[in-house]
Amino acid sequence: MTVPTSAQPLARRADAQRSIAAILKAAVNALSRDPDASVSDIAKAAGVGRVTLYGHFPNRADLVEAALAHAIDQGHAALDAVDLVGDTRQALTRLIDSSWLLVNQSRALLLAAQAVLPPSRIRDLHAGPVERVEGLVKRGQDDGAFRSDLSTSWLVGVMHSVMHTAADEINAGRLDPDQAAAFITATVLAAFTPPGRRVPA
Amino acid sequence: MTVPTSAQPLARRADAQRSIAAILKAAVNALSRDPDASVSDIAKAAGVGRVTLYGHFPNRADLVEAALAHAIDQGHAALDAVDLVGDTRQALTRLIDSSWLLVNQSRALLLAAQAVLPPSRIRDLHAGPVERVEGLVKRGQDDGAFRSDLSTSWLVGVMHSVMHTAADEINAGRLDPDQAAAFITATVLAAFTPPGRRVPA
Repeated sequence: MTVPTSAQPLARRADAQRSIAAILKAAVNALSRDPDASVSDIAKAAGVGRVTLYGHFPNRADLVEAALAHAIDQGHAALDAVDLVGDTRQALTRLIDSSWLLVNQSRALLLAAQAVLPPSRIRDLHAGPVERVEGLVKRGQDDGAFRSDLSTSWLVGVMHSVMHTAADEINAGRLDPDQAAAFITATVLAAFTPPGRRVPA
Repeated sequence: MTVPTSAQPLARRADAQRSIAAILKAAVNALSRDPDASVSDIAKAAGVGRVTLYGHFPNRADLVEAALAHAIDQGHAALDAVDLVGDTRQALTRLIDSSWLLVNQSRALLLAAQAVLPPSRIRDLHAGPVERVEGLVKRGQDDGAFRSDLSTSWLVGVMHSVMHTAADEINAGRLDPDQAAAFITATVLAAFTPPGRRVPA
Protein backbone atom coordinates (compact mmCIF):
# COMPACT_ATOMS: atom_id res chain seq x y z
CA MET A 1 0.00 0.00 0.00
CA THR A 2 1.46 3.37 -0.99
CA VAL A 3 0.30 6.73 0.20
CA PRO A 4 -0.13 9.13 -2.75
CA THR A 5 2.83 11.52 -2.72
CA SER A 6 0.63 14.61 -2.68
CA ALA A 7 -1.11 13.44 0.52
CA GLN A 8 2.09 12.93 2.50
CA PRO A 9 2.69 16.56 3.54
CA LEU A 10 -0.94 16.90 4.67
CA ALA A 11 -0.79 13.67 6.67
CA ARG A 12 2.50 14.73 8.21
CA ARG A 13 1.04 18.11 9.09
CA ALA A 14 -1.97 16.47 10.77
CA ASP A 15 0.46 14.25 12.73
CA ALA A 16 2.46 17.28 13.82
CA GLN A 17 -0.70 19.08 14.93
CA ARG A 18 -1.78 16.06 16.98
CA SER A 19 1.69 15.94 18.61
CA ILE A 20 1.64 19.65 19.40
CA ALA A 21 -1.86 19.43 20.88
CA ALA A 22 -0.83 16.45 23.05
CA ILE A 23 2.38 18.22 24.18
CA LEU A 24 0.56 21.45 25.09
CA LYS A 25 -2.13 19.57 27.02
CA ALA A 26 0.53 17.57 28.90
CA ALA A 27 2.62 20.70 29.54
CA VAL A 28 -0.33 22.65 30.98
CA ASN A 29 -1.24 19.69 33.23
CA ALA A 30 2.31 19.00 34.40
CA LEU A 31 3.31 22.65 34.97
CA SER A 32 0.02 23.38 36.77
CA ARG A 33 0.99 20.69 39.29
CA ASP A 34 4.74 21.39 39.43
CA PRO A 35 6.34 24.60 38.09
CA ASP A 36 9.65 22.69 37.83
CA ALA A 37 8.24 19.85 35.69
CA SER A 38 10.94 18.74 33.23
CA VAL A 39 10.75 18.49 29.46
CA SER A 40 11.22 14.70 29.78
CA ASP A 41 8.25 14.40 32.14
CA ILE A 42 6.11 16.42 29.73
CA ALA A 43 7.21 14.38 26.69
CA LYS A 44 6.41 11.15 28.57
CA ALA A 45 2.97 12.41 29.63
CA ALA A 46 2.26 13.52 26.05
CA GLY A 47 3.29 10.11 24.69
CA VAL A 48 5.92 11.60 22.36
CA GLY A 49 9.69 11.30 22.24
CA ARG A 50 11.98 14.08 23.45
CA VAL A 51 13.27 14.56 19.91
CA THR A 52 9.73 15.15 18.65
CA LEU A 53 9.07 17.58 21.48
CA TYR A 54 12.30 19.52 20.86
CA GLY A 55 11.40 19.58 17.16
CA HIS A 56 8.36 21.68 18.04
CA PHE A 57 9.71 23.54 21.10
CA PRO A 58 13.50 24.03 20.88
CA ASN A 59 13.92 24.74 24.60
CA ARG A 60 12.02 24.56 27.90
CA ALA A 61 11.27 28.31 27.91
CA ASP A 62 9.52 28.01 24.51
CA LEU A 63 7.46 25.12 25.85
CA VAL A 64 6.51 26.98 29.06
CA GLU A 65 5.51 30.06 27.06
CA ALA A 66 3.40 27.95 24.67
CA ALA A 67 1.75 26.18 27.63
CA LEU A 68 0.86 29.50 29.29
CA ALA A 69 -0.48 30.86 25.98
CA HIS A 70 -2.56 27.69 25.56
CA ALA A 71 -3.97 27.92 29.11
CA ILE A 72 -4.80 31.60 28.62
CA ASP A 73 -6.56 30.86 25.30
CA GLN A 74 -8.63 28.13 26.93
CA GLY A 75 -9.44 30.39 29.88
CA HIS A 76 -10.35 33.24 27.55
CA ALA A 77 -12.80 30.95 25.73
CA ALA A 78 -14.29 29.77 29.05
CA LEU A 79 -14.84 33.40 30.11
CA ASP A 80 -17.22 33.86 27.13
CA ALA A 81 -19.84 32.36 29.45
CA VAL A 82 -19.57 35.24 31.97
CA ASP A 83 -22.54 37.62 31.80
CA LEU A 84 -21.07 41.09 31.26
CA VAL A 85 -24.34 43.01 30.76
CA GLY A 86 -26.18 45.04 33.39
CA ASP A 87 -24.61 46.92 36.33
CA THR A 88 -20.91 47.42 35.50
CA ARG A 89 -19.61 46.86 39.04
CA GLN A 90 -21.53 43.60 39.35
CA ALA A 91 -20.36 42.53 35.89
CA LEU A 92 -16.75 43.28 36.88
CA THR A 93 -17.20 41.29 40.10
CA ARG A 94 -18.45 38.29 38.08
CA LEU A 95 -15.54 38.62 35.65
CA ILE A 96 -12.98 38.84 38.50
CA ASP A 97 -14.48 35.80 40.26
CA SER A 98 -14.37 33.65 37.11
CA SER A 99 -10.95 34.94 36.02
CA TRP A 100 -9.48 34.30 39.47
CA LEU A 101 -10.67 30.65 39.39
CA LEU A 102 -8.60 30.22 36.22
CA VAL A 103 -5.53 32.12 37.50
CA ASN A 104 -5.63 30.18 40.77
CA GLN A 105 -5.78 26.83 38.92
CA SER A 106 -2.74 27.94 36.93
CA ARG A 107 -0.72 29.38 39.83
CA ALA A 108 2.08 26.83 39.40
CA LEU A 109 2.10 27.34 35.62
CA LEU A 110 2.30 31.12 36.18
CA LEU A 111 5.24 30.54 38.52
CA ALA A 112 6.95 28.45 35.82
CA ALA A 113 6.33 31.23 33.30
CA GLN A 114 7.60 33.97 35.65
CA ALA A 115 10.88 32.05 35.93
CA VAL A 116 11.51 32.23 32.17
CA LEU A 117 9.52 35.24 30.87
CA PRO A 118 9.56 38.95 31.78
CA PRO A 119 6.27 40.45 33.13
CA SER A 120 5.78 42.38 29.88
CA ARG A 121 5.72 39.13 27.85
CA ILE A 122 3.29 37.52 30.33
CA ARG A 123 1.06 40.57 30.05
CA ASP A 124 1.24 40.44 26.21
CA LEU A 125 0.12 36.79 26.26
CA HIS A 126 -3.04 38.00 28.07
CA ALA A 127 -4.07 40.18 25.11
CA GLY A 128 -7.46 38.43 24.76
CA PRO A 129 -8.48 38.64 28.44
CA VAL A 130 -7.05 42.18 28.63
CA GLU A 131 -9.25 43.27 25.71
CA ARG A 132 -12.35 41.85 27.41
CA VAL A 133 -11.56 43.69 30.67
CA GLU A 134 -10.81 46.84 28.70
CA GLY A 135 -14.28 46.84 27.12
CA LEU A 136 -15.94 46.49 30.51
CA VAL A 137 -13.73 49.14 32.17
CA LYS A 138 -14.47 51.60 29.33
CA ARG A 139 -18.20 51.01 29.74
CA GLY A 140 -17.89 51.61 33.50
CA GLN A 141 -15.96 54.82 32.89
CA ASP A 142 -18.64 55.97 30.42
CA ASP A 143 -21.55 55.21 32.76
CA GLY A 144 -19.76 56.80 35.75
CA ALA A 145 -19.36 53.60 37.81
CA PHE A 146 -15.54 53.69 37.43
CA ARG A 147 -13.15 56.63 37.68
CA SER A 148 -12.24 58.47 34.47
CA ASP A 149 -9.37 60.53 35.90
CA LEU A 150 -7.08 57.52 35.36
CA SER A 151 -6.67 55.96 31.89
CA THR A 152 -8.48 52.78 30.85
CA SER A 153 -5.19 51.00 30.17
CA TRP A 154 -3.90 51.91 33.65
CA LEU A 155 -7.02 50.49 35.37
CA VAL A 156 -6.73 47.32 33.26
CA GLY A 157 -3.04 47.03 34.21
CA VAL A 158 -3.90 47.46 37.90
CA MET A 159 -6.52 44.71 37.75
CA HIS A 160 -4.08 42.37 35.97
CA SER A 161 -1.35 43.01 38.52
CA VAL A 162 -3.66 42.74 41.56
CA MET A 163 -4.73 39.26 40.37
CA HIS A 164 -1.14 38.17 39.84
CA THR A 165 -0.16 39.68 43.21
CA ALA A 166 -2.77 37.42 44.81
CA ALA A 167 -1.15 34.39 43.16
CA ASP A 168 2.31 35.50 44.33
CA GLU A 169 1.06 36.19 47.88
CA ILE A 170 -0.56 32.75 48.12
CA ASN A 171 2.65 31.14 46.85
CA ALA A 172 4.60 33.11 49.50
CA GLY A 173 2.23 31.89 52.25
CA ARG A 174 1.03 35.43 53.04
CA LEU A 175 -2.52 35.06 51.66
CA ASP A 176 -5.14 32.42 52.42
CA PRO A 177 -6.39 31.02 49.06
CA ASP A 178 -9.96 31.13 50.40
CA GLN A 179 -9.71 34.90 50.94
CA ALA A 180 -8.11 35.72 47.60
CA ALA A 181 -11.22 36.32 45.47
CA ALA A 182 -12.77 38.65 48.08
CA PHE A 183 -9.49 40.55 48.55
CA ILE A 184 -9.02 41.02 44.79
CA THR A 185 -12.61 42.20 44.24
CA ALA A 186 -12.54 44.60 47.21
CA THR A 187 -9.21 46.06 46.07
CA VAL A 188 -10.10 46.46 42.39
CA LEU A 189 -13.58 47.92 43.06
CA ALA A 190 -12.06 50.43 45.52
CA ALA A 191 -9.25 51.35 43.10
CA PHE A 192 -11.84 51.91 40.33
CA THR A 193 -14.21 54.05 42.49
CA PRO A 194 -14.42 57.69 41.26
CA PRO A 195 -12.87 60.29 43.62
CA GLY A 196 -15.48 61.66 46.05
CA ARG A 197 -17.63 58.50 45.76
CA ARG A 198 -17.92 55.88 48.51
CA VAL A 199 -15.95 52.63 48.32
CA PRO A 200 -18.47 49.74 48.06
CA ALA A 201 -19.01 47.90 51.36
CA MET B 1 59.52 45.69 51.33
CA THR B 2 57.49 42.78 52.69
CA VAL B 3 54.00 42.94 54.03
CA PRO B 4 53.74 41.16 57.41
CA THR B 5 52.09 37.78 56.81
CA SER B 6 49.33 38.39 59.35
CA ALA B 7 48.30 41.59 57.56
CA GLN B 8 47.92 39.96 54.15
CA PRO B 9 44.45 38.48 54.61
CA LEU B 10 43.18 41.81 55.97
CA ALA B 11 44.72 43.80 53.13
CA ARG B 12 43.36 41.30 50.62
CA ARG B 13 39.94 41.52 52.20
CA ALA B 14 40.01 45.34 51.97
CA ASP B 15 41.01 45.02 48.29
CA ALA B 16 38.15 42.63 47.66
CA GLN B 17 35.72 44.96 49.38
CA ARG B 18 36.87 47.87 47.24
CA SER B 19 36.47 45.75 44.09
CA ILE B 20 32.98 44.66 45.10
CA ALA B 21 31.95 48.24 45.89
CA ALA B 22 33.28 49.45 42.52
CA ILE B 23 31.57 46.59 40.66
CA LEU B 24 28.20 47.19 42.35
CA LYS B 25 28.33 50.93 41.69
CA ALA B 26 29.23 50.32 38.04
CA ALA B 27 26.55 47.62 37.70
CA VAL B 28 23.81 49.87 39.13
CA ASN B 29 24.87 52.71 36.80
CA ALA B 30 25.20 50.55 33.69
CA LEU B 31 21.99 48.53 34.22
CA SER B 32 20.01 51.69 35.08
CA ARG B 33 20.92 53.00 31.62
CA ASP B 34 20.69 49.70 29.71
CA PRO B 35 18.99 46.57 31.10
CA ASP B 36 21.06 44.49 28.65
CA ALA B 37 24.46 45.89 29.79
CA SER B 38 27.02 43.08 29.58
CA VAL B 39 29.34 41.78 32.30
CA SER B 40 32.32 43.03 30.23
CA ASP B 41 30.90 46.57 30.07
CA ILE B 42 30.36 46.54 33.83
CA ALA B 43 33.86 45.18 34.57
CA LYS B 44 35.37 47.87 32.33
CA ALA B 45 33.35 50.66 34.01
CA ALA B 46 34.37 49.31 37.43
CA GLY B 47 38.04 49.24 36.44
CA VAL B 48 38.41 45.54 37.25
CA GLY B 49 39.16 42.51 35.09
CA ARG B 50 36.46 40.04 34.09
CA VAL B 51 38.20 37.32 36.09
CA THR B 52 38.03 39.47 39.24
CA LEU B 53 34.36 40.23 38.58
CA TYR B 54 33.49 36.55 38.02
CA GLY B 55 35.40 35.74 41.22
CA HIS B 56 32.84 37.78 43.15
CA PHE B 57 29.76 37.20 40.95
CA PRO B 58 29.91 33.79 39.19
CA ASN B 59 27.28 34.73 36.57
CA ARG B 60 25.38 37.70 35.21
CA ALA B 61 22.20 36.83 37.16
CA ASP B 62 24.17 37.00 40.46
CA LEU B 63 25.55 40.38 39.46
CA VAL B 64 22.13 41.74 38.46
CA GLU B 65 20.61 40.51 41.73
CA ALA B 66 23.44 42.10 43.76
CA ALA B 67 23.05 45.37 41.82
CA LEU B 68 19.30 45.47 42.51
CA ALA B 69 19.88 44.66 46.19
CA HIS B 70 22.49 47.46 46.34
CA ALA B 71 20.17 50.01 44.69
CA ILE B 72 17.33 49.02 47.04
CA ASP B 73 19.60 49.38 50.10
CA GLN B 74 20.68 52.84 48.97
CA GLY B 75 17.09 53.83 48.25
CA HIS B 76 15.96 52.48 51.60
CA ALA B 77 18.59 54.65 53.33
CA ALA B 78 17.51 57.71 51.30
CA LEU B 79 13.89 57.16 52.35
CA ASP B 80 14.93 57.70 55.99
CA ALA B 81 14.56 61.41 55.18
CA VAL B 82 10.82 61.08 54.42
CA ASP B 83 8.61 62.52 57.18
CA LEU B 84 6.24 59.72 58.19
CA VAL B 85 4.57 61.43 61.16
CA GLY B 86 1.22 63.25 61.12
CA ASP B 87 -1.78 62.43 58.93
CA THR B 88 -1.32 58.84 57.66
CA ARG B 89 -2.70 59.46 54.15
CA GLN B 90 -0.41 62.45 53.66
CA ALA B 91 2.54 60.47 55.04
CA LEU B 92 1.77 57.63 52.61
CA THR B 93 1.55 60.11 49.74
CA ARG B 94 5.00 61.49 50.65
CA LEU B 95 6.42 57.97 50.90
CA ILE B 96 4.92 56.96 47.53
CA ASP B 97 6.27 60.11 45.83
CA SER B 98 9.81 59.57 47.15
CA SER B 99 9.75 55.80 46.54
CA TRP B 100 8.51 56.28 42.99
CA LEU B 101 11.40 58.66 42.19
CA LEU B 102 13.76 55.82 43.13
CA VAL B 103 11.82 53.09 41.28
CA ASN B 104 11.58 55.29 38.19
CA GLN B 105 15.34 55.96 38.22
CA SER B 106 15.89 52.21 38.39
CA ARG B 107 13.30 51.18 35.79
CA ALA B 108 15.94 49.71 33.46
CA LEU B 109 17.64 47.93 36.38
CA LEU B 110 14.26 46.50 37.43
CA LEU B 111 13.74 45.28 33.85
CA ALA B 112 17.17 43.59 33.96
CA ALA B 113 16.24 41.96 37.28
CA GLN B 114 12.81 40.81 36.01
CA ALA B 115 14.59 38.99 33.18
CA VAL B 116 16.62 36.83 35.60
CA LEU B 117 14.66 36.75 38.90
CA PRO B 118 11.11 35.63 39.75
CA PRO B 119 8.76 38.29 41.23
CA SER B 120 8.96 36.59 44.65
CA ARG B 121 12.75 37.09 44.80
CA ILE B 122 12.40 40.75 43.72
CA ARG B 123 9.79 41.26 46.41
CA ASP B 124 12.09 39.58 49.01
CA LEU B 125 14.94 41.95 48.11
CA HIS B 126 12.58 44.80 49.07
CA ALA B 127 12.34 43.58 52.69
CA GLY B 128 13.58 46.92 54.10
CA PRO B 129 11.24 49.19 52.13
CA VAL B 130 8.39 46.70 52.65
CA GLU B 131 8.89 46.86 56.43
CA ARG B 132 8.75 50.66 56.35
CA VAL B 133 5.51 50.64 54.32
CA GLU B 134 4.11 47.96 56.63
CA GLY B 135 4.61 50.17 59.71
CA LEU B 136 2.80 53.06 58.06
CA VAL B 137 -0.05 50.90 56.74
CA LYS B 138 -0.55 49.36 60.20
CA ARG B 139 -0.72 52.83 61.76
CA GLY B 140 -3.29 53.90 59.13
CA GLN B 141 -5.36 50.78 59.80
CA ASP B 142 -5.22 51.51 63.56
CA ASP B 143 -6.25 55.16 63.20
CA GLY B 144 -9.01 54.28 60.70
CA ALA B 145 -7.52 56.07 57.68
CA PHE B 146 -6.95 52.76 55.86
CA ARG B 147 -9.23 49.75 55.54
CA SER B 148 -8.83 46.94 58.10
CA ASP B 149 -11.00 44.36 56.32
CA LEU B 150 -7.96 43.44 54.18
CA SER B 151 -4.70 42.28 55.79
CA THR B 152 -1.72 44.60 56.23
CA SER B 153 0.51 42.33 54.15
CA TRP B 154 -2.05 42.34 51.31
CA LEU B 155 -2.20 46.16 51.22
CA VAL B 156 1.61 46.31 51.26
CA GLY B 157 1.73 43.78 48.40
CA VAL B 158 -0.80 45.84 46.41
CA MET B 159 1.26 49.03 46.84
CA HIS B 160 4.45 47.21 45.80
CA SER B 161 2.80 45.78 42.70
CA VAL B 162 1.06 49.03 41.70
CA MET B 163 4.45 50.81 41.72
CA HIS B 164 6.05 48.07 39.64
CA THR B 165 3.03 48.06 37.29
CA ALA B 166 3.69 51.77 36.67
CA ALA B 167 7.29 50.93 35.72
CA ASP B 168 6.10 48.14 33.38
CA GLU B 169 3.41 50.36 31.83
CA ILE B 170 5.92 53.16 31.13
CA ASN B 171 8.31 50.63 29.57
CA ALA B 172 5.43 49.35 27.39
CA GLY B 173 4.63 52.91 26.26
CA ARG B 174 1.14 52.83 27.80
CA LEU B 175 1.81 55.31 30.64
CA ASP B 176 3.26 58.83 30.46
CA PRO B 177 6.15 59.00 32.99
CA ASP B 178 4.92 62.46 34.09
CA GLN B 179 1.55 60.98 35.12
CA ALA B 180 2.92 57.95 36.96
CA ALA B 181 3.29 59.39 40.49
CA ALA B 182 -0.25 60.84 40.43
CA PHE B 183 -1.71 57.58 39.05
CA ILE B 184 0.05 55.45 41.69
CA THR B 185 -0.99 57.71 44.58
CA ALA B 186 -4.63 57.93 43.40
CA THR B 187 -4.81 54.15 42.95
CA VAL B 188 -3.18 53.20 46.26
CA LEU B 189 -5.15 55.75 48.34
CA ALA B 190 -8.40 54.53 46.76
CA ALA B 191 -7.49 50.86 47.28
CA PHE B 192 -6.70 51.61 50.97
CA THR B 193 -9.93 53.60 51.63
CA PRO B 194 -12.24 51.83 54.12
CA PRO B 195 -15.53 50.50 52.64
CA GLY B 196 -18.31 53.10 52.95
CA ARG B 197 -15.81 56.00 53.02
CA ARG B 198 -15.25 58.41 50.14
CA VAL B 199 -12.24 58.02 47.84
CA PRO B 200 -10.01 61.12 48.23
CA ALA B 201 -10.41 63.64 45.40
